Amino acid sequence: MTATSMEQLTSLCKRRGFVYQSGEIYGGVQGIYDYGPLGVELKNNIKSAWWRAMVYQRDDVEGIDGSILTHRKVLHYSGHEETFIDPLVDCRKCKKRMRADYVENDECPHCGSKDLTEPRPFNMMFKTSVGPVQDQDSFAYLRPETAQHIFTNFKNVVDSTARTIPFGIAQIGKAFRNEITPRNFIFRVRELEQMELEFFVKPGTDEEWHKQWIETRLDWWEKQGVSRDRITLYDVPKNELAHYSKSTIDLMYEFPHGVEELEGIANRTDFDLGSHTKSQVDLNIQACVQPNPDTTSRLALQDLTAKSWFVPYVIEPAAGVDRAVLAVMNEAFEIEQLENGFERTVLRLPAHLAPIKVAVIPLKKNHPEIVEFTKRLVGELKALALGRVMFENTGNIGKSYRKHDEAGTPLCITVDFETLADGTVTLRNRDTMRQVRIQSQELADYVLDYVKD
Amino acid sequence: MTATSMEQLTSLCKRRGFVYQSGEIYGGVQGIYDYGPLGVELKNNIKSAWWRAMVYQRDDVEGIDGSILTHRKVLHYSGHEETFIDPLVDCRKCKKRMRADYVENDECPHCGSKDLTEPRPFNMMFKTSVGPVQDQDSFAYLRPETAQHIFTNFKNVVDSTARTIPFGIAQIGKAFRNEITPRNFIFRVRELEQMELEFFVKPGTDEEWHKQWIETRLDWWEKQGVSRDRITLYDVPKNELAHYSKSTIDLMYEFPHGVEELEGIANRTDFDLGSHTKSQVDLNIQACVQPNPDTTSRLALQDLTAKSWFVPYVIEPAAGVDRAVLAVMNEAFEIEQLENGFERTVLRLPAHLAPIKVAVIPLKKNHPEIVEFTKRLVGELKALALGRVMFENTGNIGKSYRKHDEAGTPLCITVDFETLADGTVTLRNRDTMRQVRIQSQELADYVLDYVKD
Repeated sequence: MTATSMEQLTSLCKRRGFVYQSGEIYGGVQGIYDYGPLGVELKNNIKSAWWRAMVYQRDDVEGIDGSILTHRKVLHYSGHEETFIDPLVDCRKCKKRMRADYVENDECPHCGSKDLTEPRPFNMMFKTSVGPVQDQDSFAYLRPETAQHIFTNFKNVVDSTARTIPFGIAQIGKAFRNEITPRNFIFRVRELEQMELEFFVKPGTDEEWHKQWIETRLDWWEKQGVSRDRITLYDVPKNELAHYSKSTIDLMYEFPHGVEELEGIANRTDFDLGSHTKSQVDLNIQACVQPNPDTTSRLALQDLTAKSWFVPYVIEPAAGVDRAVLAVMNEAFEIEQLENGFERTVLRLPAHLAPIKVAVIPLKKNHPEIVEFTKRLVGELKALALGRVMFENTGNIGKSYRKHDEAGTPLCITVDFETLADGTVTLRNRDTMRQVRIQSQELADYVLDYVKD
Repeated sequence: MTATSMEQLTSLCKRRGFVYQSGEIYGGVQGIYDYGPLGVELKNNIKSAWWRAMVYQRDDVEGIDGSILTHRKVLHYSGHEETFIDPLVDCRKCKKRMRADYVENDECPHCGSKDLTEPRPFNMMFKTSVGPVQDQDSFAYLRPETAQHIFTNFKNVVDSTARTIPFGIAQIGKAFRNEITPRNFIFRVRELEQMELEFFVKPGTDEEWHKQWIETRLDWWEKQGVSRDRITLYDVPKNELAHYSKSTIDLMYEFPHGVEELEGIANRTDFDLGSHTKSQVDLNIQACVQPNPDTTSRLALQDLTAKSWFVPYVIEPAAGVDRAVLAVMNEAFEIEQLENGFERTVLRLPAHLAPIKVAVIPLKKNHPEIVEFTKRLVGELKALALGRVMFENTGNIGKSYRKHDEAGTPLCITVDFETLADGTVTLRNRDTMRQVRIQSQELADYVLDYVKD
């Protein structure tokens, strides 16, 4: 089951504290969001699941964490200064400024006038002035993608880890795009977070690796609860490809607002390393790169058999964290009709992604023995280091269950008078709503097993 | 033991892949760094340890993750537009621009001329233009501290979690300060990461909570290997206090370059919530706040007994992640003189912070049975989900041990011919260098127990 509209998700997000608009008390900033208490956990859990799969579970990937402020020359030679642009038009009547392609597709609400300016290019990178002297050379960009720091650190990583191809470098972090028309909640935003892998391979093996990474990534999404049935592969046509790409497969997901990109898996060839390298001429670079008199480094490897230097090709699976949050929530969302005629909203998140792993609820909020037993139990469960374990002292079991259904908490435990007599507690399952009594000493093993990846 | 100079740490950081200068291949950007394969793990482990202690292990703290781009009015009413400034002077001879206080303290290398301009205020916040229209109102700030998003979301969090005081909101994330003179490696940087807790309390109980948080934080640092012996408490004098603070205790640590702030624990009173709230006049705000006609929200709580509204006080333990990395590495660093006359560099990191938990090394890199056994073992250890487990196939045991001493890997396991015969492996301890033979089936329990928090 999924949500039937974006509004169902935004309303749950606000109500339960997943996502708020940034600077809301001052009217907000368009396309910029803050993650609340549940959202930060969901987001961190998704990022951890990605890092575990990409770095910890493999033997051929290193991680890095680069800066957001980026040397302007990095984004000059990467081609972003020239090509990271959207076409922009102004309405001469209502003065609204819009993306030209949105107007063509009739998706852009304005006054409706057809009296528009000619489209002109708009660079989507944010700039800021660095240092106490403001002149033409003292600015840096906020990175529009995390990938470039992987390329510029290629030699650093190779030198400090002695890696040889095939191997990858993974990174999770914020990126910034000055979208003309941010929209669809956390789908198209100006401040986003990315999970990017650059996987370096021998030229000629790139197409095979590209196929393999598409399968690997589809498997990963399935483990996060994002059904393969709602993902289609879009082979991006040549005329729509980014400037660095030989071939890109987009994983297109059925978001509540329509079918759009969840992750792009691109064959970036030797374009990026080639663009940032010196002495390009001896390296047999396949991509069309401009001469680079500014770089100090040679981003190439030696072929020990052929005794020659070459620039690796790179396959890039690049996913958006915010889009992942949206997709994962959408898949997990259900308004379930109950037998008694009522309905409940439930977020059937995979347990390893759930913001709160277990809620422990005393039947009576002011009963000293019950509360004390509950607190002891909470302490024992916290010691398992599972993530958030919640002491839910509202005194209202039904209300607590409904709250934790919406929060996606897989297990609720209730401590009552029977507990004091025989040590058993009620264990309630989010998905089945079934309740069983279980000895409290058996809880640790049960819970550990239930919430693990 | 600690490092004896910053150079020992920077050299290790570069050599082993902890930290690189950002944009290095283009000459770098001053005061901005990238974390390499080991650095990202160390940094993430420190952040996780903080989040576990602050959010997961407590019952009174929620987390959030706010945006970096920040509505200008947030930083206007927070007082940062007016007060987040450093004094700046120019040398009329060599044209160098510097922090006035560094010149006074003779710490700022320039041509030496005394012909300087009068100091003038320099605002340290980075600005950027947001949206397709560039005018005076279309800019946002890069947040100079994460704290403000906690204050502006105060009501959102209270509404979605039903919290009452005392309770806190925790956040980890990047912040940006346009330092005139960044220096001392990752100590004073332009792009930094913070771990901040805002703990909301009843006015009048603030001083008691302040004391309590100082103790709690000192305990935490000790668990990260930062000795209490090298931390002194600095009671910031009135004339040096930030504009929001009634009292601040800085934890001053003996960094390699001198004694400087590792964490600040401030009593921010009701200044921030009071500054961002509407209808201030009925709220009995103690701090000196300016009228706020722009906010739409009332950041106050109801005292159910007195039936009146009040603005909570807030205690803020605010630590720098990059400074934490530096302090933790410094504490762990040792050049040890060995009995055989040689020396080794070893990073005695607490196991829960170590970037790589275990390295598994086959005695012969091309021996099929040994390599296969090693890979199986690596797979079993990876399944424990401890973090990084490294398959170290260099074929040189001594070199691998030295590498992992420098990386801070607590345990190395060697697979050899004896392993094939009887299933035992050599387990080598980083700190003692002692090697014992252990049955490979017993490894999982041993390692799990050894590396846990």
